[in-house]
Amino acid sequence: MASTTIAAPITSQQFREHWQGHRALTRRVIDAFPEDKLFSYSLGGMRPFSALAMEFIGMAVPTLNGIITGEWAQYAEAKATTKADLLKQWDHTTAEIDRLWPQITDARFQEVDTAFGQWKMPIYGLLLYLQDNEIHHRGQGYVYLRALGIEPPPFWER
Amino acid sequence: MASTTIAAPITSQQFREHWQGHRALTRRVIDAFPEDKLFSYSLGGMRPFSALAMEFIGMAVPTLNGIITGEWAQYAEAKATTKADLLKQWDHTTAEIDRLWPQITDARFQEVDTAFGQWKMPIYGLLLYLQDNEIHHRGQGYVYLRALGIEPPPFWER
Repeated sequence: MASTTIAAPITSQQFREHWQGHRALTRRVIDAFPEDKLFSYSLGGMRPFSALAMEFIGMAVPTLNGIITGEWAQYAEAKATTKADLLKQWDHTTAEIDRLWPQITDARFQEVDTAFGQWKMPIYGLLLYLQDNEIHHRGQGYVYLRALGIEPPPFWER
Repeated sequence: MASTTIAAPITSQQFREHWQGHRALTRRVIDAFPEDKLFSYSLGGMRPFSALAMEFIGMAVPTLNGIITGEWAQYAEAKATTKADLLKQWDHTTAEIDRLWPQITDARFQEVDTAFGQWKMPIYGLLLYLQDNEIHHRGQGYVYLRALGIEPPPFWER
């Protein structure tokens, strides 16, 4: 059988690695917060960074499960009250993403589905949304750290 | 000739549309700032939002030109002193991105190049970097707006 190579702008594996690179950076941002500030500090009436990190954890695996099965269970925010517990849940999610992602077929990325019965969009758009939402709120975390006088981890290191 | 359809996780056009969707949101964030705050307000010793927007403008077209030609001219921050001028330059960049992007071949996305003689990475990674950098710093702009008591435009609208 003749093999055909078609260049995709981004492959599935590169897409996953890009997300995991960002998630590694978000982990360093979580870790850069002093324990108490992680759960209490905010600006402009926004949420503390722990709440944002728990949102990321709460969305990741339920979204991948929905993409793979087509069944959209309720997603729920993670709950953690210490930095150590939050990081442990973060690392569990990291491993789950690596396990689940290869189960997404290339064709599935282009299918349109209604995630959690609410958000109708192509699967690639949903996955980009998870990543973009994390980058967006992590940018908020950078301001919190700077305002606390803490040097955040470099943005370009993944 | 038999036609073969290979599903790419994201097509080139979807990649461009994703960026332009984010850029439309960034434009609304620029516009949400009062004129004086756009050029002066900051938190934690960071740059005002106008400087961030000028960075985005300064990177976009020079990067696309480098990707297309393989020649990396110096990139330069845009210069604007009024919101109207900044938005005019923003819109010019929007049109230039739409004009230049289709000149990037599918194979080119996977090539590794050293952008501006400094950043060695695959072209798709460089393009993601531009988008991620914009989302990251725009998240900073959201905190500025909230701290100023201004409701930012919804993140999920593009």
